[in-house]
Amino acid sequence: MKGLLGQPVPVVAANAGKKQGGIILRVANAANVSVTDPTAQQNREGYRVFVEQRNIVVSGPTDAAVLYGTFALLRQIQTRQPLTNLALTSTPKIQYRLLNHWDNPNGTVERGYAGSSIWKWYELPELLDPRYEDYARANASIGINGVVINNVNASARYLTPEYLRKVAALAGVFRAYGIRVYLSVFWAAPKTVGGLPTSDPLDPRVRRWWTDKTNEIYQTIPDFGGFLVKANSEGEPGPQDYGRNHAEGANMLAEALGQHDGIVMWRAFVYKANSNGDRFKEAYEEFKPLDGKFASKALVQVKNGPIDFQSREPFHPLFGAMPSTPLVLEVQLTQEYLGFATHLVYLAPLIKECLEADTYAKGKGSTVAKVVDGSLDNHKISGIAGVANIGSDRNWTGHPMGQANWYSFGRLAWDYTLSAETIAQEWTRMTLTTEPQAVNTIADVLVKSRDIYVRYTTPLGLHHIMGQSIHFGPEPWLSKSARPDWTAIYYHKADSIGLGFNRTATGSNALALYKPEVQKEWGNPQTCPPDYLLWFHHVPWKQTMSTGRTLWNEICYRYYTGVDSVTWMQQRWEQVKPSIDPVLHADITARLQIQHKEAIWWRDACVLYFQSFSRQRIPAPFTQPDRSLEAVKQIVDIYQMR
Amino acid sequence: MKGLLGQPVPVVAANAGKKQGGIILRVANAANVSVTDPTAQQNREGYRVFVEQRNIVVSGPTDAAVLYGTFALLRQIQTRQPLTNLALTSTPKIQYRLLNHWDNPNGTVERGYAGSSIWKWYELPELLDPRYEDYARANASIGINGVVINNVNASARYLTPEYLRKVAALAGVFRAYGIRVYLSVFWAAPKTVGGLPTSDPLDPRVRRWWTDKTNEIYQTIPDFGGFLVKANSEGEPGPQDYGRNHAEGANMLAEALGQHDGIVMWRAFVYKANSNGDRFKEAYEEFKPLDGKFASKALVQVKNGPIDFQSREPFHPLFGAMPSTPLVLEVQLTQEYLGFATHLVYLAPLIKECLEADTYAKGKGSTVAKVVDGSLDNHKISGIAGVANIGSDRNWTGHPMGQANWYSFGRLAWDYTLSAETIAQEWTRMTLTTEPQAVNTIADVLVKSRDIYVRYTTPLGLHHIMGQSIHFGPEPWLSKSARPDWTAIYYHKADSIGLGFNRTATGSNALALYKPEVQKEWGNPQTCPPDYLLWFHHVPWKQTMSTGRTLWNEICYRYYTGVDSVTWMQQRWEQVKPSIDPVLHADITARLQIQHKEAIWWRDACVLYFQSFSRQRIPAPFTQPDRSLEAVKQIVDIYQMR
Repeated sequence: MKGLLGQPVPVVAANAGKKQGGIILRVANAANVSVTDPTAQQNREGYRVFVEQRNIVVSGPTDAAVLYGTFALLRQIQTRQPLTNLALTSTPKIQYRLLNHWDNPNGTVERGYAGSSIWKWYELPELLDPRYEDYARANASIGINGVVINNVNASARYLTPEYLRKVAALAGVFRAYGIRVYLSVFWAAPKTVGGLPTSDPLDPRVRRWWTDKTNEIYQTIPDFGGFLVKANSEGEPGPQDYGRNHAEGANMLAEALGQHDGIVMWRAFVYKANSNGDRFKEAYEEFKPLDGKFASKALVQVKNGPIDFQSREPFHPLFGAMPSTPLVLEVQLTQEYLGFATHLVYLAPLIKECLEADTYAKGKGSTVAKVVDGSLDNHKISGIAGVANIGSDRNWTGHPMGQANWYSFGRLAWDYTLSAETIAQEWTRMTLTTEPQAVNTIADVLVKSRDIYVRYTTPLGLHHIMGQSIHFGPEPWLSKSARPDWTAIYYHKADSIGLGFNRTATGSNALALYKPEVQKEWGNPQTCPPDYLLWFHHVPWKQTMSTGRTLWNEICYRYYTGVDSVTWMQQRWEQVKPSIDPVLHADITARLQIQHKEAIWWRDACVLYFQSFSRQRIPAPFTQPDRSLEAVKQIVDIYQMR
Repeated sequence: MKGLLGQPVPVVAANAGKKQGGIILRVANAANVSVTDPTAQQNREGYRVFVEQRNIVVSGPTDAAVLYGTFALLRQIQTRQPLTNLALTSTPKIQYRLLNHWDNPNGTVERGYAGSSIWKWYELPELLDPRYEDYARANASIGINGVVINNVNASARYLTPEYLRKVAALAGVFRAYGIRVYLSVFWAAPKTVGGLPTSDPLDPRVRRWWTDKTNEIYQTIPDFGGFLVKANSEGEPGPQDYGRNHAEGANMLAEALGQHDGIVMWRAFVYKANSNGDRFKEAYEEFKPLDGKFASKALVQVKNGPIDFQSREPFHPLFGAMPSTPLVLEVQLTQEYLGFATHLVYLAPLIKECLEADTYAKGKGSTVAKVVDGSLDNHKISGIAGVANIGSDRNWTGHPMGQANWYSFGRLAWDYTLSAETIAQEWTRMTLTTEPQAVNTIADVLVKSRDIYVRYTTPLGLHHIMGQSIHFGPEPWLSKSARPDWTAIYYHKADSIGLGFNRTATGSNALALYKPEVQKEWGNPQTCPPDYLLWFHHVPWKQTMSTGRTLWNEICYRYYTGVDSVTWMQQRWEQVKPSIDPVLHADITARLQIQHKEAIWWRDACVLYFQSFSRQRIPAPFTQPDRSLEAVKQIVDIYQMR
């Protein structure tokens, strides 16, 4: 308040007598929060902010609720909204709103582009970096109430007493901010930590070990949140090593949690190496048959799309397909396939696109959001997870605009009905400037930025054509890898006829995983939205599209205008210069220069490579790149050298 | 000046007329700097600060000299020395004063404990982090004039035009601070970057490639400093792959440098896996025969000791053994084997110990310092390198006291006659407090800290008994590794009789690599300083030492009093609390807690393990550790888990 108002605000005790013109924080069971389902856990986090006897009252049933209400009030002030007749009421739509950190014990962050991990394991528990509290406060301000602090490719260290003391020290900092700690677990821990000969989830010794270990964790961290599990995926051990299925694994952990207030989130991100298969279908085929077999404390965590955090994916076919199982939506805030920390890509539109997608599971309007918040299938438990883009960089996220992705994830997790535009405006006002024209300009750039990124990298539904070890750069020519489904040609299937992955009935038939209404729209290249076209169809180069252009001309059109749009972003950013801190403005100006350079790099790599199949000219008014495919490949190779 | 004086100091042009009471910066060829060898390059960096007509004049023959003089003046003010009759004159004793960064292109730092690399390769060259200039200024303030920016386990990326542009951007920031950029090179670059079938240094195509590449580098970075090479060491490629020796490799690069003002530093850190050999001798045996064979632009870079940056090593036997070759002394500031960033260990005493060691190469007084500064053998070229302890952490070095190691390296590189105590006082006054009693207390702790670390980890000349993948922790029981000389038992050779590596004539005879005077002192266990005893002798457990204690009792005495000394450090630090910034004080207090915990961990690990050989009791007044060897091993194992 002092920072916002420029003068100190005295803090007085509750019994300081009748005063006016102040702010009252009131934790009260009868918080008068309007609720649709009074039994839901998340109503304990709902707040009300209102005016009473010339005081502003922030009220809620729990400390956390009042904390969230306080941040709502601060947001109201910071975004310069009126305070007269203040009446804010809000309850989170999703119960578990988690950040997932892919942070390793050695301080690196898998897919981290903002320095090293903020957790300093060699210093914990004795030394608490002041940033731990800054981090907790930032999360609380946007409604995040849990953090999984370690990588899903998990070290067993965290399950040892030595490391649990460290984790407990973090939990001690987070507790006052309504944030609970969760751990990713290494499936083979009963062997590596416990000294058992097996990790078979049906073995009584293993079950006992997990129960004892869980009890030990709760003794150390009384408000521990639970477990996140990546098992039998990309080389990680899991219950299938013993002939057990994912539900048997998850249920064993749920049993270990027993009466403790904790949950298991079991990731559905699994796929086996199969050069004749379609990775698109594999999670569905493994998990769909298990619907109804998971214990009540077990949730299945599903990425927004069926492949892996591409710049645009159709919604994951498991959404709507497992009505008996609460599904956690996992989205990625760290921009692994969206330009790392040098490209400005605002992710709220991507997250919204998934949440608003209609699964038709129970007829029209069965959106992914309704699956995730539990309302479609009457689940009492619901969750959403964002893979954190946070690191040790002074500005937390590398790209200053990356903060908007952290922010918007929290806001959407609380209330997914907020528009991407509204959140962009809010964040801009709270972070960069309150000058109205500049706010509009910046929010406009933010909202359009994800579509622009898609255009210059993977238009029309192209996917997974990035560099094998530089996920921010192009490598559509990648044809060999340790696994066929880690190449690019597996996905784009370019040939002399055309481009795209036929997932209709004449192809892999992945489309059949969706409800008939979805199949109908996407199954016909004429009605399939161009954004998803090459996800589902192998389209001839010369086929005319709804835009009136042939596929080849449309691809070129999108790559070239995508690059032009980066220029547009640069121009818009230059316009707001007078309203922005000069150092920050210069930083983002330089990052936009890099983005422009790399957009051209993507464009040239892709049009030159695909041209070797289409054997057509670049359509006017665009001109052939002034370098060869070989020259572009050399640059990509440099970034993949040891 | 504004920060120091609390009021702005106007800057006026040189022709602003006769003024008084100011500071004049004067770049003048006739700088009146007193020099012993007027031809030496480093005299171009010497400065004079004096009073002239009621002005303070900072004078030197070059911009860099005046810059160094300016920092000397600032140091004078900041440490509250009198300015009346000011007369400072100084010339660096060593020409090339370099930091070596072991930073990787992916942002990790090999042996880095202070966050990630400060170089942001994905952002360069467009975006220049403001810290680049802070870093350059800090280096200039202590006289460092060159930085090798990439790991000696080098990526070939840096030799591509794409990365040279990035390196040039850094060089552009550093130039104004008198700092030149150097590159570690990957020996196989002619193959991986150049597309040649070979990297044979005698192949004309390879020689041509390096010459062309070097010319390209100088076109991009006109003041490029030169190359650092780790070749045929720990798996790195090198000239021996083609039957060529190190000199042939170095000379090929020297030839490529041609008329450019650049040098080659060729590292002598080489050792082959040989379970019957003695790693101590290997660098000597490979390099000594090459003395006189190196081109004039080639220097050989030698670590302070024969093994690898242990907490205490005898000076490297190559010092004094290669009179025809300028030797660069390489010391490590990042505390790989000295507690990472959680132990307070001030390294100036370690560096001084090496510099002051007498090689007797040309009779008494032939110190390592005189070898390194070139005076002993009349070399016109001299160098010293510190492996940087700098990372992205806000305080640069993780442990705030780690800054003292960066600082003292620069100061000693400029003038190795400065005492460790003087530098500790200087740094403390400039960084922590000017309160005299607190300064004395802190400097005292700093100066004693390295001996304390040695006592609780590797007393009496024990070495290389750290954890295989946790170099900050103990693992004396390590008996198996990918190489025999990566185990602990290879070095301590504990058995039922005694402890230590017999390197006398009845053992590996590594002692014979030293001059007779050194051999005489170290070869007799009665005259060998206890600090080096187990480096050279296998001593019976029951043998009485000069202290009057048996070896076993002396070992125990040192481990236990070493831990007690950490308690002493804690007490001393608590005493200075009123004089130190509270957040900083709390930070170091917590780190000292960690250090104390880990000191006990080292003590218990080592006395329990060695006790299994000595089969003797812990001597009174010390008591048996209250845990088993197995319990300590378990903790070490935790820190080595995936």
